[in-house]
Amino acid sequence: MNNSELNNRVVARGKEFFSTISGEKPSLFNKGAWMGKVMDWSMKNETFKIQMFRFVDVFPSLTTGKLLTDHIREYFGEEKDMPPVLSTGAKVAGMLGSFGGAVLNKFLTTNIQEMARQFIVGENTKEAIKNMERLRKDGFAFVVDVLGEATLSEREADIYMNTYLELLDSLKKEYKDWKPLPGRGGDGSLDWGHAPKVNVAVKPTALFCLANPQDFEGSVVAILNRVRKIAEKVIELNGFLCIDMESYRHKDIIIEVYKRLKLEYPAYPHFGLVLQAYLVDTDKDLPELLSWAREKKVQISLRLVKGAYWDYETVKAKQNDWKVPVWTIKAESDAAYERQARMILENSDICHFACASHNIRTISAVMEMAKELNVPDERYEFQVLYGMAEPVRKGILKVAGRIRLYCPYGDMVPGMGYLVRRLLENTANESFLRQSFAEDAQIEKLLEDPALTAERERAARAAKQKAEAKGPGNLPPFNNEAMVDFTRADHRAAFPKTIAEVRKQLGKTYPLFINGKEVKTGDTIPSVNPNQPSETVGVVCQAGTKEVGDAIAAAKGAFPAWRDTDIKVRAEYLVKAAAVARRRIFELSAWQVLEIGKQWDQAYADVCEAIDFLEYYAREMITLGSPKRIGHAPGELNHYFYEPKGVAAVISPWNFPLAISMGMVSAAIVAGNCVVFKPSGLTSVIGYHIVELFREVGLPDGVFNYTPGRGSVMGDYLVDSPDISLIAFTGSMEVGLRIIERAAKVYPGQENVKKIVCEMGGKNAIIIDDDADLDEAVPHVLYSAFGFQGQKCSACSRVIVLDAVYDKFVERLVSMAQATLVGPSEDPAHYMGAVADDKAMKTIKEYAEIGKKEGHVLYESKVPSDSGYYVPMTIIGGIKPEHRIAQEEIFGPVLAVMRAKDFDQAIAWANSTKFALTGGVFSRSPEHLAQARKEFRVGNLYLNRNNTGALVGRQPFGGSKMSGVGTKAGGHDYLLHFMDPRVVTENTMRRGFAPVEEDDDWVA
Amino acid sequence: MNNSELNNRVVARGKEFFSTISGEKPSLFNKGAWMGKVMDWSMKNETFKIQMFRFVDVFPSLTTGKLLTDHIREYFGEEKDMPPVLSTGAKVAGMLGSFGGAVLNKFLTTNIQEMARQFIVGENTKEAIKNMERLRKDGFAFVVDVLGEATLSEREADIYMNTYLELLDSLKKEYKDWKPLPGRGGDGSLDWGHAPKVNVAVKPTALFCLANPQDFEGSVVAILNRVRKIAEKVIELNGFLCIDMESYRHKDIIIEVYKRLKLEYPAYPHFGLVLQAYLVDTDKDLPELLSWAREKKVQISLRLVKGAYWDYETVKAKQNDWKVPVWTIKAESDAAYERQARMILENSDICHFACASHNIRTISAVMEMAKELNVPDERYEFQVLYGMAEPVRKGILKVAGRIRLYCPYGDMVPGMGYLVRRLLENTANESFLRQSFAEDAQIEKLLEDPALTAERERAARAAKQKAEAKGPGNLPPFNNEAMVDFTRADHRAAFPKTIAEVRKQLGKTYPLFINGKEVKTGDTIPSVNPNQPSETVGVVCQAGTKEVGDAIAAAKGAFPAWRDTDIKVRAEYLVKAAAVARRRIFELSAWQVLEIGKQWDQAYADVCEAIDFLEYYAREMITLGSPKRIGHAPGELNHYFYEPKGVAAVISPWNFPLAISMGMVSAAIVAGNCVVFKPSGLTSVIGYHIVELFREVGLPDGVFNYTPGRGSVMGDYLVDSPDISLIAFTGSMEVGLRIIERAAKVYPGQENVKKIVCEMGGKNAIIIDDDADLDEAVPHVLYSAFGFQGQKCSACSRVIVLDAVYDKFVERLVSMAQATLVGPSEDPAHYMGAVADDKAMKTIKEYAEIGKKEGHVLYESKVPSDSGYYVPMTIIGGIKPEHRIAQEEIFGPVLAVMRAKDFDQAIAWANSTKFALTGGVFSRSPEHLAQARKEFRVGNLYLNRNNTGALVGRQPFGGSKMSGVGTKAGGHDYLLHFMDPRVVTENTMRRGFAPVEEDDDWVA
Repeated sequence: MNNSELNNRVVARGKEFFSTISGEKPSLFNKGAWMGKVMDWSMKNETFKIQMFRFVDVFPSLTTGKLLTDHIREYFGEEKDMPPVLSTGAKVAGMLGSFGGAVLNKFLTTNIQEMARQFIVGENTKEAIKNMERLRKDGFAFVVDVLGEATLSEREADIYMNTYLELLDSLKKEYKDWKPLPGRGGDGSLDWGHAPKVNVAVKPTALFCLANPQDFEGSVVAILNRVRKIAEKVIELNGFLCIDMESYRHKDIIIEVYKRLKLEYPAYPHFGLVLQAYLVDTDKDLPELLSWAREKKVQISLRLVKGAYWDYETVKAKQNDWKVPVWTIKAESDAAYERQARMILENSDICHFACASHNIRTISAVMEMAKELNVPDERYEFQVLYGMAEPVRKGILKVAGRIRLYCPYGDMVPGMGYLVRRLLENTANESFLRQSFAEDAQIEKLLEDPALTAERERAARAAKQKAEAKGPGNLPPFNNEAMVDFTRADHRAAFPKTIAEVRKQLGKTYPLFINGKEVKTGDTIPSVNPNQPSETVGVVCQAGTKEVGDAIAAAKGAFPAWRDTDIKVRAEYLVKAAAVARRRIFELSAWQVLEIGKQWDQAYADVCEAIDFLEYYAREMITLGSPKRIGHAPGELNHYFYEPKGVAAVISPWNFPLAISMGMVSAAIVAGNCVVFKPSGLTSVIGYHIVELFREVGLPDGVFNYTPGRGSVMGDYLVDSPDISLIAFTGSMEVGLRIIERAAKVYPGQENVKKIVCEMGGKNAIIIDDDADLDEAVPHVLYSAFGFQGQKCSACSRVIVLDAVYDKFVERLVSMAQATLVGPSEDPAHYMGAVADDKAMKTIKEYAEIGKKEGHVLYESKVPSDSGYYVPMTIIGGIKPEHRIAQEEIFGPVLAVMRAKDFDQAIAWANSTKFALTGGVFSRSPEHLAQARKEFRVGNLYLNRNNTGALVGRQPFGGSKMSGVGTKAGGHDYLLHFMDPRVVTENTMRRGFAPVEEDDDWVA
Repeated sequence: MNNSELNNRVVARGKEFFSTISGEKPSLFNKGAWMGKVMDWSMKNETFKIQMFRFVDVFPSLTTGKLLTDHIREYFGEEKDMPPVLSTGAKVAGMLGSFGGAVLNKFLTTNIQEMARQFIVGENTKEAIKNMERLRKDGFAFVVDVLGEATLSEREADIYMNTYLELLDSLKKEYKDWKPLPGRGGDGSLDWGHAPKVNVAVKPTALFCLANPQDFEGSVVAILNRVRKIAEKVIELNGFLCIDMESYRHKDIIIEVYKRLKLEYPAYPHFGLVLQAYLVDTDKDLPELLSWAREKKVQISLRLVKGAYWDYETVKAKQNDWKVPVWTIKAESDAAYERQARMILENSDICHFACASHNIRTISAVMEMAKELNVPDERYEFQVLYGMAEPVRKGILKVAGRIRLYCPYGDMVPGMGYLVRRLLENTANESFLRQSFAEDAQIEKLLEDPALTAERERAARAAKQKAEAKGPGNLPPFNNEAMVDFTRADHRAAFPKTIAEVRKQLGKTYPLFINGKEVKTGDTIPSVNPNQPSETVGVVCQAGTKEVGDAIAAAKGAFPAWRDTDIKVRAEYLVKAAAVARRRIFELSAWQVLEIGKQWDQAYADVCEAIDFLEYYAREMITLGSPKRIGHAPGELNHYFYEPKGVAAVISPWNFPLAISMGMVSAAIVAGNCVVFKPSGLTSVIGYHIVELFREVGLPDGVFNYTPGRGSVMGDYLVDSPDISLIAFTGSMEVGLRIIERAAKVYPGQENVKKIVCEMGGKNAIIIDDDADLDEAVPHVLYSAFGFQGQKCSACSRVIVLDAVYDKFVERLVSMAQATLVGPSEDPAHYMGAVADDKAMKTIKEYAEIGKKEGHVLYESKVPSDSGYYVPMTIIGGIKPEHRIAQEEIFGPVLAVMRAKDFDQAIAWANSTKFALTGGVFSRSPEHLAQARKEFRVGNLYLNRNNTGALVGRQPFGGSKMSGVGTKAGGHDYLLHFMDPRVVTENTMRRGFAPVEEDDDWVA
């Protein structure tokens, strides 16, 4: 049959389908009911939709009347301003007035719960089973799924697993009594004569809290260990187990789990896997899976869905500068679905197919393809979601005789998340159900071959596409360097390989680099791997005052020519250096893993940030570089522009050894200054890579000079030098303030008052509001506090939890911490590694001891017994603002937990230290978020996310108070600190004649 | 006759006129000749026109072959790139090649001189007379005018006057022998039977170098004294004397000179005055003059011209924010001309009329009106410029029988200026001659009634006009406050009146102002008039550490509320304070005249600048105030915004007592900081006016605190206070560096690292290039050096003159200085007044003595013998870069003159001090100007103008090196120094759903 013939049949079948259900509406769109009204309003009013769905999301955490009343007001305004769907409803329910709040609370509570019940088959096992039995009586099979909060700990994973085991135990008692659903298959004990009556779906990431492609093998094994137990119980019932697919990030892990499970029980036919047609990968994953099954000679089952996380996948990809993994035109997903369904049906001998869709075109296409390919009934079935598309399920039952409803059940909290996803899906402009039942789109259009639709839309999009945007100086616009993508096997493989290669190069001696020449000194110090201090990463020559003096002189000598070098040329060096760093990105990351103990992702992110600084400042300088005309009086040209200050001393820390160094160095250089760079003694080998980068791109001699050295020997000399015009420092408050004080003295012969760009410490707090989404808050706090052992000036070192959620938060946080491991950073199974050096280890341990006296230990991890500089992951509760560990920067994995009575107190405590660097808030209260924006006075405040990992250009970084002098690295103001502004004013009038400039203010 | 009938006759006459000259072309547009080619190219290519006319302007100063060759290249590029009119000409003249430069030099020199000869009747008296006699033979009368460089001294004024006297002496010998031109008048010894054969025009401002409406009476008297001598000689010859009109600035002075001269010789009929139809004022000036003549019963004569300085008048007005004094539509001037000509003709009984125009419509209109009004021939005549519009003059001669040519003569240098004006006039798009003879516009259109044309163009303009631009926060866009306009009689009168009023209020006691309350202290100091120290301006309470502490506490207390006050509300206080200052502008100026000895214009400019700061920073803050989204990743909102730092100490100088104080105070306040303000002890009464301004607008208590005090008592206390977060200082380098050093120390309890905004001294140089226009350079240098007694950080204290022009420049500079007077600032006759106080007087005198030893005195003025703090205006020559007075800031009226061998050396010397504040260059070399832009490294560089008087928003002010820390007051970066940036990042994705923001980077 040719395509067009098949398509005609599909369309005909679709029309017939529509006609059989003509006049019916899914209850979702029934405007007579409250939910239908909400759906209607949401489709008409985007703001209401956002507020409503967010409110539904936060709703289960509003456990008191006051919380509920407050949130209703915050989300929807005062009663008088509310949309009619709320206020009218409330008025009907019982006049608003002095008791209006309570009435509205009751009204919304009832209705939201009602709405949830539409999609959720029950709140507990018993209720779910009862309702599913009722569905069976109506002729519907089920696949049951347990809703759960995000799994954040081993305990929660066990609970989730045990719920399945208990569910299966309960079903075991019942299912045999169920009358099989009628069908043409041969086995009378099964539904339709071939299908197990018990069918369960399971979300694999709920079975392991640290599932993560960086630790691919660890994740697969951990998930498999729990899935196996469920599988065993399913086999006991001769049931069906489906492994659900979740976000793209875990796709390959889940496929691997499925394959391994399958091979453990190769003969058992009823294990299924979900594939998502909206993923571009599926066109590759599906044939691979089919080949694998043929090769392994196993029967598999695939449920094909379109995919429910389109927004999420797109947003995550865009945020990380990854290729968007989903089709970006809806019809492309639909077309992919038909393409892939056909492939599965063509392989029906080895693959059972579950067609999960509410789209009548899709369903009709599958029916016609199956017919064309003569696929037997028992090799495919249809699935729809419980509570949705009732006319569709009725139609399928009528035509195909076999349909299975996907039935989630569980608590309100996870239930609301599920509800929101369903509401979003059905209010999306491109929703088939919305178009079919809420908007009465033309049936012809709904049934069009999606491949044609997609082609048309691609053409339309191409036509609309503007010329590619140009950034400054005809460079492409700035974009952050893409984060490492451990969903890619090549990225996962690169680390162990590159670390091994780098390891072969350890122990070399590194010279200074002054005026374009390598300079060796007799004084050297070794730089070691903190996870294994016996491993010497490199031996680094140390500059004394003589060498620093030479470097300053070299920089001073190179300055005039560099200052006068065309700005675009200066910028070009940075862009080229970025290209070199990009080429060497895994290698540069590997050096960080070994020299300072960064985890893979942390190391890679540091190199990305270094590249970002190079690319960003190059563009910023081009933008700032061209003189701007100011004023518009005719006969007068005023040009405002910037000039470099002179010789810059850049003194950098070890914790972002490439990024922060490169940030300060590249800003200074591109602005036209020449640099004397002193890296931290702990990361001087990484510092030397900056020499390599700039040498490779041919930066002129003397512009960049590398002088590692002992602060006690050459620090003051560098700071005091009258030839230094600018000091860029990032490090501790003590050293920073010392530099500020010393540098303020002007010495004879000194040309400029020294400018100090100074980033110092932090004592950063995250506030957990009483309505926070703990599924989000807990892992983000853990990461913010313990990522790279808490050795970030941005790291969370205080978590201030509102009393109402304190116990639950702490319980989940500690549980999650318990799941983590401490050990060498190069092994991705370890959440935390060693701290920077023995001195840091000692200081942090002392603070932990102070904390233990001031409060009480909530958690203290084990550490490896070997010689690395390990400090336990430490969480201390009962901390008050006056305690030392609530005030002093620790710069290590010690987290103080504080119980605040309310949000005001939390904000006050958060602001109560001498620092003001980063902060975070987890809240779903619009008013509290607004209050935090205003009153939580830190340089970088993060709402509902982790508070580390500021990105160049997006989260310009830096704070005030004792955290810094108000500079923002990676921001549009930053380069201004490296230059002085100048104005040139020309009187262009001669003999009464002034040339006309385009923007002159002549007479209109 | 009704209008339309008259117009018909005018048009008919015009057509006849055109037909009589049909086929003829002015030599100007003869493309066969070089000048015609230049005109043609200039009309086609604006860039060439600018370069050509500028080249013509600089040409006479190119006194060596090298200078000439260099400038040809700089203006027109390499020979291969030159426009054909130059290179072809040169090729024709004698092939370009290795001797190309010399050939081109010769070619251009010859042609430019030829071009000048077109318009200039001779280079000296003898040649001029010879040529005028020749003209008479052709039937043309003349009015002769002596071209002169700008008159910069009494000597130059005398030379100019003497040239006239000699001219008249020469004419005296000749004119009687001349055959009178034929005419219908009755006196056979006169031209046309009624007109004197000798007719001279004189430019009054050439007779007094300091002519200036601020000193109206002084200017009138000085001009009259010289004009009288010329007039007496004219009377001896029974000649005609015409007082030419020049720029608008001197119009009322010139009218007054004419009236007084007229009344001195009431019976002598042959004194004429020029009026300019393009001035809007002329519609008022003309009837006034006629009434005056009737009242005084004198015969007058008016030459009506359109006006030749349209560009200049427009540019000056726009630059000073004055109403443009000229009609802005060309036809409006033409219509005004006809209107005014009619009025003159209607008064022909008392007023003789010279119709000076090349416009055939205008001429025809005058002819027809005269006919209609029966004006006798002897009551009107026609004038055209020598060398222009030959067909027109021929036509007039034919029709009217009497035409006078305006014949300038004189040196090449002033001749070139005259030439450029003529070239501009004839290449202007709206030039009647260009339209008539170079573009063959339709005769109908050329002859249209200009009143109709004007009306049509006004309507077209109105239709085109856009909605008025809006500035930030719906305020009007920022515009500088209009400068005082001494052409206005009300502005002139306001000063003596207001000074007298203020004088009545002297001697009051001024309290401190802390937390909204006046606070008196026992310790007071008087503030005195430096021109008259016995006059106590006010008695000022002095803050001790107790009061400063109270003020800091008040500011700290007020800070949270002020910080949280809406930015627009904060800005509104500034805008309101500006309105109050604007209302009180003359009074606030008068206080400055008395308390610190500012001249009228200087005082007014200071208040304008204060108003500008208020208006500018208000708008800047509104612009900066709204958080900006950065980055475009969906699901992520990053907002970048600024917050105030806390309590600001503002320490201000006495030299711009309102402006600089208000600048720092208003920036701090609008940014949200609270201020403790310490004014200079010399200007604390003016400082108190800031209290008054802010009280009147109701600024909340504690936001602004006024604490004058002795630096020795409370200076360090203020600077050291841990509660101060920001210090804004303007003053000397010594104090500035002390503050920087002290403030860098962080004290216990201190919240922030102190931010220092610090403007310090200067040692500013102006370079005089060998091709500089000395007419411009000399007065600008004098003003830059001695305006307000040189007490500006921007003042010129070194003038570096290229050897080639050194002698001429110095001669003219010293001569001009000699013309100035030193005395009480409140008398506008005084160029300079007393310096700030006895301490300043002593220091400056010491420096003058040092200078006298290091170099030699070129000029030292007299000073009044009374008790004011007077220092002579001192110019010292022979200064080398190593001399103290070439290196140290003097801050008074001592100017060092240095002779540099070339431009490179001049730049090197200019940059050779520890300061980098302002600088200036007078040059007409494009390459040198470009070099200076790059290499003359100062905060504010001025090309071809004075180097003081930076305007807010147009010349943001401030320097680097020891002049400051790279801040630019009145610039768009300035407020950033008063705030810390913050970033708030919100993860907007919940449950996989992220609201779409307008500028999100979703999939295209």
